[in-house]
Amino acid sequence: MNIRKRTWEIVEASTSGDRASRIFDISILSLIFLNVIAVIIGSVQSVQERWGAALNVFEALSVLVFTVEYLARLWSCTTDPQFRSRFRGRVRLAFRAMSIIDLLSILPFYLPFLGIDLRFLRVLRLLRILRVAKVGRYYSSLNLIKHVFQSKKEELLLTSALMGLLLVVSSSLLYYCENAAQPDTFSSIPATMWWSVATLTTVGYGDMYPITLMGKFFASIIAILGIGMFALPTGIIGAGFVEAIQKKKGQHVCPHCGKELHQ
Amino acid sequence: MNIRKRTWEIVEASTSGDRASRIFDISILSLIFLNVIAVIIGSVQSVQERWGAALNVFEALSVLVFTVEYLARLWSCTTDPQFRSRFRGRVRLAFRAMSIIDLLSILPFYLPFLGIDLRFLRVLRLLRILRVAKVGRYYSSLNLIKHVFQSKKEELLLTSALMGLLLVVSSSLLYYCENAAQPDTFSSIPATMWWSVATLTTVGYGDMYPITLMGKFFASIIAILGIGMFALPTGIIGAGFVEAIQKKKGQHVCPHCGKELHQ
Amino acid sequence: MNIRKRTWEIVEASTSGDRASRIFDISILSLIFLNVIAVIIGSVQSVQERWGAALNVFEALSVLVFTVEYLARLWSCTTDPQFRSRFRGRVRLAFRAMSIIDLLSILPFYLPFLGIDLRFLRVLRLLRILRVAKVGRYYSSLNLIKHVFQSKKEELLLTSALMGLLLVVSSSLLYYCENAAQPDTFSSIPATMWWSVATLTTVGYGDMYPITLMGKFFASIIAILGIGMFALPTGIIGAGFVEAIQKKKGQHVCPHCGKELHQ
Amino acid sequence: MNIRKRTWEIVEASTSGDRASRIFDISILSLIFLNVIAVIIGSVQSVQERWGAALNVFEALSVLVFTVEYLARLWSCTTDPQFRSRFRGRVRLAFRAMSIIDLLSILPFYLPFLGIDLRFLRVLRLLRILRVAKVGRYYSSLNLIKHVFQSKKEELLLTSALMGLLLVVSSSLLYYCENAAQPDTFSSIPATMWWSVATLTTVGYGDMYPITLMGKFFASIIAILGIGMFALPTGIIGAGFVEAIQKKKGQHVCPHCGKELHQ
Repeated sequence: MNIRKRTWEIVEASTSGDRASRIFDISILSLIFLNVIAVIIGSVQSVQERWGAALNVFEALSVLVFTVEYLARLWSCTTDPQFRSRFRGRVRLAFRAMSIIDLLSILPFYLPFLGIDLRFLRVLRLLRILRVAKVGRYYSSLNLIKHVFQSKKEELLLTSALMGLLLVVSSSLLYYCENAAQPDTFSSIPATMWWSVATLTTVGYGDMYPITLMGKFFASIIAILGIGMFALPTGIIGAGFVEAIQKKKGQHVCPHCGKELHQ
Repeated sequence: MNIRKRTWEIVEASTSGDRASRIFDISILSLIFLNVIAVIIGSVQSVQERWGAALNVFEALSVLVFTVEYLARLWSCTTDPQFRSRFRGRVRLAFRAMSIIDLLSILPFYLPFLGIDLRFLRVLRLLRILRVAKVGRYYSSLNLIKHVFQSKKEELLLTSALMGLLLVVSSSLLYYCENAAQPDTFSSIPATMWWSVATLTTVGYGDMYPITLMGKFFASIIAILGIGMFALPTGIIGAGFVEAIQKKKGQHVCPHCGKELHQ
Repeated sequence: MNIRKRTWEIVEASTSGDRASRIFDISILSLIFLNVIAVIIGSVQSVQERWGAALNVFEALSVLVFTVEYLARLWSCTTDPQFRSRFRGRVRLAFRAMSIIDLLSILPFYLPFLGIDLRFLRVLRLLRILRVAKVGRYYSSLNLIKHVFQSKKEELLLTSALMGLLLVVSSSLLYYCENAAQPDTFSSIPATMWWSVATLTTVGYGDMYPITLMGKFFASIIAILGIGMFALPTGIIGAGFVEAIQKKKGQHVCPHCGKELHQ
Repeated sequence: MNIRKRTWEIVEASTSGDRASRIFDISILSLIFLNVIAVIIGSVQSVQERWGAALNVFEALSVLVFTVEYLARLWSCTTDPQFRSRFRGRVRLAFRAMSIIDLLSILPFYLPFLGIDLRFLRVLRLLRILRVAKVGRYYSSLNLIKHVFQSKKEELLLTSALMGLLLVVSSSLLYYCENAAQPDTFSSIPATMWWSVATLTTVGYGDMYPITLMGKFFASIIAILGIGMFALPTGIIGAGFVEAIQKKKGQHVCPHCGKELHQ
């Protein structure tokens, strides 16, 4: 039972003072990082040809470590009051967002042995990149940003809805304006959506652009409205940070009389 | 009279607790959403060929529902004290922004039977997309964003005017710089405006760009000034959100007498 | 003397209640606006061919009006205590930013009779567009934006300097990286500056882009640093607006005890 | 000893009232500025051909001045209590960020005499541009911006990490989507990173863009997420400026006892 408890302490995020847990955290983090690098570098043709075998070995080894870590977590979690129940506790742990990411980052390696179509796997393989997301767990300052997004969730969702609306209206508008002049590029409303996204986000690749007078006129208005796509979320998030800072300072205590200050 | 009152309650935005009204709202919302999807998908050639007939039937059915809803609203509105008068009340209802959008989203379907030129109709058809705008009515959080925009209306209008000025000045400047070198692309000031919009909004399609030294010099300055086109509205809107939040919190305490201030 | 005083009252910005002055302001404003439209439209070849003569007449007439207005202002200004002195007062008026713009917007029309080279004049002609700037005088809300920019002048200047530094460093860096691979496009540091501006402002026309590995690596870093070119001025201006709003509210009086609140 | 002390006073940033030090500062600043201009202009082929010799002389002279300044600083620094120790004080001075920049901006000139490969030197030469960074030392208002960045360091670093994560995920995703359709442009994940940077920063050169349906779909999502790359740092920096301003104003009053709070 002591081993199980110690395993859980080590495998979970380190508390200050626990040296073994900290070393474990840093090691796993480094391995995740190296693995991501390996996936990226392995996609280069010339690298694959020369070091393909070595990369495959490294891939297999790191998946092994990640599997052991995943199982160790599942095995030891019952010592935590949060996951005390043998079955239900483990299921609850397994369905934490981070655990799902962990599983998905290991699974694609084992699936080919199950006789699944390889082309489907090619899309699954990129899930390994999700291992990077694990890094997020080690940052506590993520909380402030998280808090700002959560407190402004409604406004940001609404802004997204307005953007979606603008996207649909602008795509329809430009389709009707440009379809006759450029039937191949502005072939349908969904095809025009690609143009709308590139314009509203101000990316502007230049593979699609209006050529008719009407099209250019409406495209200009859409491009200018696209400024709002930056101004609104930026303003909302900025105000959220100001608010979060003021809340933290709020409820100070007066150094003279010792009473609380309601901001 | 009871039926009329009940109809009005159902057709208008639901108050909490009224189940029939809520089901009606969600149904209409779903139908609007499906209809928008149908318009978008219907613009794809291959979809039109296969499911064109089905989409036309769905179009006709949904327009029927929207028409019934529109007429039901007009018929029942007299039970509301706001629109009590038989004629003037209905006219007032019909001229609410939302009612006009409702009507414009139905009308294009009936207009072809009036023998109007079809090409003109093609532009009108895209008005059906305005049905999407109806969705906005169901969001109450729209109010904060609305409030911020209204309280900052003057500054935002002024910023727009400054942008318009910058647009005209930059278009004229680039036209005089580039016209001699690229008479086909920078053919006139209005034609150069397309370049100015693409540059000031930082979209930059790449279909038009200066090639002369003078043109590149002024274009650089214009592109840098274009940053202000994002900084100014973003700053104004951000300050508006901060202000709106602080107003909500208001109720400070006077440092002299200790009583609450209703700001 | 009475006529001179009345002229000055009419010609200067209207005070509330003075009807003649207001009508004059609106008329001049409309004429300026129409004149700008005429300049823009006149640059279109087909319009110039058909209505060129009419546009020239309109041009001559509006310049006449603007000249009369300019001279009327110079003649009548001595009734204002600010410009009381016959000569020095008029000189001071003539050197107000707005007066210089007024003069520059008329002068190009008279200059051709002086036998000056016409090609030089073509650049001067675009100064007529400065008439648009006169519109700014009529907006009082311009003051808040002006105030924010003035109170943040130092920080914004510093940001501009940082941008300039980034521009020079990135241009030099990319020049050394890309010159060997693309000697025609990345031909010199000044030529590469055009790429830097397009990248740092995120316009990205696509007429110049790195192709070497080193070039793409540094260009990526530069493009990401370019985000700061939006974040810094936007943050500074946003904070300026928040500050301006709080200052306006500051120095309220407590409704209970009547004492001033230092915010 | 007096000469050494006076040298240090002159060579270091001027204190108000010391005229000689100020003249020295402005002279060095001007020379740095002229030198940067010379480097930029010297990269233009035609300028190099005509004034190449003169530029080389100017280069040699300015490097001489910068060397004398650098040595004077090293020699005289021992009069400052901060660098009192003969050897350790001088080493500490030499390792100040500004001193390293100073040295790196002189060194490339002397290195060719050491028989080092000239092609390697071509990359080193651009370090001369670092002289521009020296200008930063002369601005005291840099402090506010510095302070904002330092107080928000953690959040900005986290945002950078999120950007890095987004960069890796989006590159992998697009690589798997587009590699089959465009094996030459989307050849590997590192190659796709160039596309990701251009899209997330909304530069969008147009040299790489997805053509498959899947690729365009994910690219749209990535481009929209790219808005966050502007909204997050802008919001954080904006909040930092608001906070810095309020701290300056601080010194609120306790609502209970009326005494001042040093925040």
